[in-house]
Amino acid sequence: MVSAAMSDIRRRLAELSLELPVLGPPKYAYEPAVLSGELLHVSGQISRTPAGEVLGGRLGDDADVRAGVTAARVCALNLLARVDDAVGLENVVRVLKLNAWVTSTPHAIDQPEVVDGASQLLIDVLGDAGRHARTALPAPILPQGALVEIDATVSVRT
Amino acid sequence: MVSAAMSDIRRRLAELSLELPVLGPPKYAYEPAVLSGELLHVSGQISRTPAGEVLGGRLGDDADVRAGVTAARVCALNLLARVDDAVGLENVVRVLKLNAWVTSTPHAIDQPEVVDGASQLLIDVLGDAGRHARTALPAPILPQGALVEIDATVSVRT
Amino acid sequence: MVSAAMSDIRRRLAELSLELPVLGPPKYAYEPAVLSGELLHVSGQISRTPAGEVLGGRLGDDADVRAGVTAARVCALNLLARVDDAVGLENVVRVLKLNAWVTSTPHAIDQPEVVDGASQLLIDVLGDAGRHARTALPAPILPQGALVEIDATVSVRT
Repeated sequence: MVSAAMSDIRRRLAELSLELPVLGPPKYAYEPAVLSGELLHVSGQISRTPAGEVLGGRLGDDADVRAGVTAARVCALNLLARVDDAVGLENVVRVLKLNAWVTSTPHAIDQPEVVDGASQLLIDVLGDAGRHARTALPAPILPQGALVEIDATVSVRT
Repeated sequence: MVSAAMSDIRRRLAELSLELPVLGPPKYAYEPAVLSGELLHVSGQISRTPAGEVLGGRLGDDADVRAGVTAARVCALNLLARVDDAVGLENVVRVLKLNAWVTSTPHAIDQPEVVDGASQLLIDVLGDAGRHARTALPAPILPQGALVEIDATVSVRT
Repeated sequence: MVSAAMSDIRRRLAELSLELPVLGPPKYAYEPAVLSGELLHVSGQISRTPAGEVLGGRLGDDADVRAGVTAARVCALNLLARVDDAVGLENVVRVLKLNAWVTSTPHAIDQPEVVDGASQLLIDVLGDAGRHARTALPAPILPQGALVEIDATVSVRT
């Protein structure tokens, strides 16, 4: 049953031409994810590709919604990789909540469209288990100049 | 017992001349609220009235604390409506945590006074079950130009 | 066993020349911390010293990483004091998640280095129980002009 679910997830990733990145440990004094009971708290993941490129820019200035969606999808893949490393994607019961930040000018208000890039990817890969509550916010800047950063709380089987 | 509590809540709402809005589904790829065990995660609610008017502005510029309090109260009513839709207000055990953002200039520091508008409304309606932990923050802008956005984690009976 | 752990914590605090501040109740309509089951939600703590001085400034302008680290350590001590008041530090099972904000110019990206001041202090005082997931963010301004604000979710024995 569990392996069937895992094969479903792998199949969906392949159908979507997505590959989970291999992420190293954070360079700072925190953990990528911490499990407590059935709740997995996943640290903020910025829009950095597996090749180490930070997708940067600022919504309303040198980044448009399309660039934001691409960056948000990178964050979502990084979140999935962190969950897979921590407990195995086959043990996800439900993505409960995303908090998402988009580097924005003080006049850009399309953060929800941008963050939908991440939300839709999670639903495409995990099915109904990927349907989550969410808060989408602007930020004046983000660590390493990233365009998007997203963290997550996930319910998992233990 | 449960119905008594619900009648208390309805009575308090009426005494305060408050009415829970009827909110539609989000226009984006997320859920209004997700339940996991006894924890209900409620998505960020902006200061949009039931009539569809977004209460906007920026603290320190064209919005003062009084306008902020009004906007924060709208967010709190929207949160209550989301909780009611998800599990029924009579099943609230405790509002655990609010995260609140107030659109602000880089010099306005009265976010706590603004967010008290939401905190006090929750206490007025729910009594001690409405007493919560909180983080109040500024934001350079918010989705749809809203003045205030608030999300919540709520402990509920299931 | 529990008292041994508490004596360890007190010893580490003394070795690090740290003293838990005595914090009064918040001036606003929220609680310092709210417990639900094994989860303690701790309200955002700004960089205000026990003497009442707010460590302010803006990263990238009049505050450097070193000033930020000092401010982040003050926030961490305030968080520990709130946990101690709520449940007793000896009952901490694990610090699960920190959310941290650093007042920053739109060009400063060293928030992770700043927040490490808090993360490292929690690990120094609590050992492995202090190792947490984290999201580090900039803010254009923070309540009372503080340089840093941090909230926490903590798993505790009840």
